[in-house]
Amino acid sequence: MNSYPESFERLTEKFAGLPGVGRKSAQRMAFYILSLSDAEAGAFADAITDAKRRVKRCRICQNLTDSEICPICGSDKRDKSVICVVSQPRDVTAFERTREYKGLYHVLHGVISPLKHIGPDDIAVKELLARLDPSVEEIILATDPDAEGEATAMYISRLVKQLGVKTTRIAYGIPVGSNLEVADDATLYRALEGRREI
Amino acid sequence: MNSYPESFERLTEKFAGLPGVGRKSAQRMAFYILSLSDAEAGAFADAITDAKRRVKRCRICQNLTDSEICPICGSDKRDKSVICVVSQPRDVTAFERTREYKGLYHVLHGVISPLKHIGPDDIAVKELLARLDPSVEEIILATDPDAEGEATAMYISRLVKQLGVKTTRIAYGIPVGSNLEVADDATLYRALEGRREI
Repeated sequence: MNSYPESFERLTEKFAGLPGVGRKSAQRMAFYILSLSDAEAGAFADAITDAKRRVKRCRICQNLTDSEICPICGSDKRDKSVICVVSQPRDVTAFERTREYKGLYHVLHGVISPLKHIGPDDIAVKELLARLDPSVEEIILATDPDAEGEATAMYISRLVKQLGVKTTRIAYGIPVGSNLEVADDATLYRALEGRREI
Repeated sequence: MNSYPESFERLTEKFAGLPGVGRKSAQRMAFYILSLSDAEAGAFADAITDAKRRVKRCRICQNLTDSEICPICGSDKRDKSVICVVSQPRDVTAFERTREYKGLYHVLHGVISPLKHIGPDDIAVKELLARLDPSVEEIILATDPDAEGEATAMYISRLVKQLGVKTTRIAYGIPVGSNLEVADDATLYRALEGRREI
């Protein structure tokens, strides 16, 4: 006999659907919800519907925002001649943490992947091309350095260059603070290839 | 510059409050919510408020239920002369899985713990005593075999015996499928002490 009430099981199932959550953890989460006050549980539920309703894509760069245009695109302190193209919103956060980059972004929301049936029309490529007015001087392609990220960068680079805009690719190399011993061969090769005069 | 919208951050914080969830996992969960359809996200939010609103304690055994009396207490197939006392609802599920026990349960919702300022009045002891009519012949104390579970069992046993009802304690011993080599000394001692003629 299943001894948990149906509404409890339903909640456990929802939690078990979250990425990286197994059945036992999901049950602990459901117990946590029961331990909350009515107001706290309500606030949790509202946070879900709120985020889902409010969060949309910036009309310009496609990054997540809850206004029409995101704070970065709307800022007059950013260099509008450079656009850094990334695959995910979390990549924007990563670059912003460096506090070094002052240009704009473009979030593709994915990479081209024939194996997963994701083509150029399934990611925000046309939205990028639509942004390329004469004020844009450089497109930095900052997709991941794996096969799909590489192919996506090459694809976009070809289209952008046809429109007469310079494209660059982020550098491969040994991570700062790491050491040569643990770097894999491909990274080492790329680090050597990308060497600069100092 | 924080590049995530506020409502997204709020949802991430809620997930980060769940037991065993760190900031990075919480963010992945929030992205998962955004990837759902409006209806699916709404169903998730509803599951939270629903469980919180519907799930209450069975008027008799204090186990979680969404009706007035839980299916076990309401069943006419259960032996109402035996009550197995456990500390948590998940313990009921564990015993039910064995399909061997046919009596009733009583869920204390905790154990007595002076260190955590949890006294007998903070757990469902008086609700247990109120159930002890002449039809009840045995109380099985099935709290955990640790210091607090042991003390709670002893405390309840004393009260119940005063009312003329027999109390028993679940057996300590070597887990089935385990071996003597890995059993700790206390368990081994208890296994020896609890030996039976075969």
